[in-house]
Amino acid sequence: MAQKRQLRLGAFMRPTTIHTGAWRYPGAYPDANFNLGHLRRFAQTLERGKFDAFFMADHLAVLNMPLEALKRSHTVTSFDPLTLLPVLAVDTRHLGLIATASTTFEQPYLIARRFASLDHISGGRAGWNIVTTSNPDAALNFGLEEHMEHDERYRRAREFHDVVTGLWDSWADDAFVRDVESGVYFDPEKLHVLDHKGPYLSVRGPLNIARPVQGWPVIVQAGASESGRQLAAETAEVIFGASPRLADGQAFYKDVKGRMAALGREPDHLKILPGAFVVVGETVDQAREKRARLDSLVHDESAIASLSIALGHDASTFDPDAPLPEVPETNASRSGRERVIALARREALTVRQLAQRLGGYSGLAFVGTPQTIADEMEEWLTGEGSDGFNVMFPYLPEGLDDFVDKVVPELQRRGIFRREYEGTTLRENLGLPRPENRFFRG
Amino acid sequence: MAQKRQLRLGAFMRPTTIHTGAWRYPGAYPDANFNLGHLRRFAQTLERGKFDAFFMADHLAVLNMPLEALKRSHTVTSFDPLTLLPVLAVDTRHLGLIATASTTFEQPYLIARRFASLDHISGGRAGWNIVTTSNPDAALNFGLEEHMEHDERYRRAREFHDVVTGLWDSWADDAFVRDVESGVYFDPEKLHVLDHKGPYLSVRGPLNIARPVQGWPVIVQAGASESGRQLAAETAEVIFGASPRLADGQAFYKDVKGRMAALGREPDHLKILPGAFVVVGETVDQAREKRARLDSLVHDESAIASLSIALGHDASTFDPDAPLPEVPETNASRSGRERVIALARREALTVRQLAQRLGGYSGLAFVGTPQTIADEMEEWLTGEGSDGFNVMFPYLPEGLDDFVDKVVPELQRRGIFRREYEGTTLRENLGLPRPENRFFRG
Repeated sequence: MAQKRQLRLGAFMRPTTIHTGAWRYPGAYPDANFNLGHLRRFAQTLERGKFDAFFMADHLAVLNMPLEALKRSHTVTSFDPLTLLPVLAVDTRHLGLIATASTTFEQPYLIARRFASLDHISGGRAGWNIVTTSNPDAALNFGLEEHMEHDERYRRAREFHDVVTGLWDSWADDAFVRDVESGVYFDPEKLHVLDHKGPYLSVRGPLNIARPVQGWPVIVQAGASESGRQLAAETAEVIFGASPRLADGQAFYKDVKGRMAALGREPDHLKILPGAFVVVGETVDQAREKRARLDSLVHDESAIASLSIALGHDASTFDPDAPLPEVPETNASRSGRERVIALARREALTVRQLAQRLGGYSGLAFVGTPQTIADEMEEWLTGEGSDGFNVMFPYLPEGLDDFVDKVVPELQRRGIFRREYEGTTLRENLGLPRPENRFFRG
Repeated sequence: MAQKRQLRLGAFMRPTTIHTGAWRYPGAYPDANFNLGHLRRFAQTLERGKFDAFFMADHLAVLNMPLEALKRSHTVTSFDPLTLLPVLAVDTRHLGLIATASTTFEQPYLIARRFASLDHISGGRAGWNIVTTSNPDAALNFGLEEHMEHDERYRRAREFHDVVTGLWDSWADDAFVRDVESGVYFDPEKLHVLDHKGPYLSVRGPLNIARPVQGWPVIVQAGASESGRQLAAETAEVIFGASPRLADGQAFYKDVKGRMAALGREPDHLKILPGAFVVVGETVDQAREKRARLDSLVHDESAIASLSIALGHDASTFDPDAPLPEVPETNASRSGRERVIALARREALTVRQLAQRLGGYSGLAFVGTPQTIADEMEEWLTGEGSDGFNVMFPYLPEGLDDFVDKVVPELQRRGIFRREYEGTTLRENLGLPRPENRFFRG
């Protein structure tokens, strides 16, 4: 019997959870976000659960929100991804290590070198999540008065990608001969000087580190805009998607894989992994109660403020414990507004509950038993809604332990998730080819 | 009896040795520079030897030398310091971890954050070696056609230091209350927005990581120019010095500590540690033979080229196996030229041996038995030539093992070097105060 299509699972660690109320959940570690010992144990648990990768989000500023909301956010203190991941590399042997880094504010020479270092340190498990950084407050931390415009950020990102991958190809894989007798450390024929001069970047090279174990660390992206999809189709090997429902996922999947085919890329060389918030219960009702309890830990005031923004209407005038009233048309994004209203009606949420959902996490979620969660995941996989998921744990450590101890065995039982790692590098585990060196073809 | 003045010992790792021929020495690891397992064991050996710190040099380009010389250099592939040191932090409990980072090519927000991350990850053992980067080839890797002029680099470095330390002070030490009940993660009164606007840098802040364990990572510098000394007197806590002889060391020591006193800084709050190349033998003659053997592994041609530059005269016309002939006056730096000629006469070196010395390492060296080495170190310490040394090992692992197993016990026996670490942070071990937060005084 042919093997079934296999799920790929990343763990979206921010570095712990995306949910604003998570640090207050009963039994959760309030400091998990910034406690090295906890983070090291989480990585080991993910490896026990055969996860493909630890995926670390990043921000180059504290989040731009009013101080009254900010003071409730556990995201304000966190480790630099490229400083934390080497530690997790030492604690694990198979888990991929994906760090976010910005093409708008970083220098390509430094990015190429740091990811190459991580790839060597981890024995070929590094991934680079290319972001263009949408938080305008970040620009102010980098000497810029104005944030770079969206499409320009993407043009720069494309050039940045080409420079970084070109620097990774500075040395042939077998450049370093280290011949003690003759005293020749490397073969000069196997060194390439990039000498890139482009519209945004000018970088001479060569890089001062050997070619990464994987050739290139795995290229990850998350943009869903037109420019983002095109950049992903051209360059990405993993997409951290954001489709809230299966139909959206299928449309996105078809669009991006179609763009790849049009470009002559093999569609299977890109894994589309939407973020999925997973709450596990003994029963579906218990899982829903856990989620409701978690949402209730989002602070009312900041939640209502988020709701007001989403609706384009001051929600603080509504009765918080009543259902959402009719909301007049406004200038707010119509699709976003309609999505919020539909959510309130579908789950019969009060104004407060709706606000807390938005203030916590309101994207794709699987809330149920290991069986119902596996059902939904399998439906996405077989329905070509995705190639797997970036799992978001609601609270730590319980949410992570539940997934690894209860959901993973169910996925394995169904034959759609590995029982052992296939290889030693992230590329091998994801089933991605090792890029040829563009300057030294084998 | 009062305790004697104590030596401070850093290990200058580049990441292994400064000597060009080291990777070819009998018994040396040819790939030590780029072998993670070896580097991890070196760090553990240094901790066994009670070293203050692992000090990592850095370059933002392959070294600018002709390809014929470059191909013999083990420096061309090495790890990014801030990616390697977190791994060494996991392997050790007391050893300080000092990384070099450039104020000319890096972004202060990223530097502040990465060093703060390393300080938290290591439990307070990070140090930042501030360099302004003198290699003009680095500029070409960072989009600049011309390298920034020397004094301007130092003015920028001073402002960069102020911004980074200001960002480290973004949060009071007790800002993070994490009150699960009320949902308040931090006290907004304990957050400071830097909002720096200066001639070179504009950085808003706050930093998105808690104040470092040490308040600030230890500030290290190496500049010996007028601008470098002044910057060090104003800001440094460790100087990686380059005095080749005791008299130079004493003059430098007196000058810098005098500048500190004039600025109202306590002179003991800066430790001056010249680089010292140490070769250990059973006898002085044996140590000298080891050094001669090591020097003989430097390639003739590139060595003769170095000598020609130092003399300002084509040395390839000289008989390589004869003593250095009279050299006519030239445009080369007169003091450098005279130093080279004096070295040849003092040690009765042939032209080839002189060239190989210059091509290997020609600064301060202690070459002898554990007793003679300890004698010299003690002479520098008691004579106020230094507060200790940044030890450079000639080859690895033997040079490091020799130092730890033979020289360290001799220093301990004399009562001038610790038998146990004094504290848990690098500051505590070096005897440096923890900086007050400039925005939140205790």
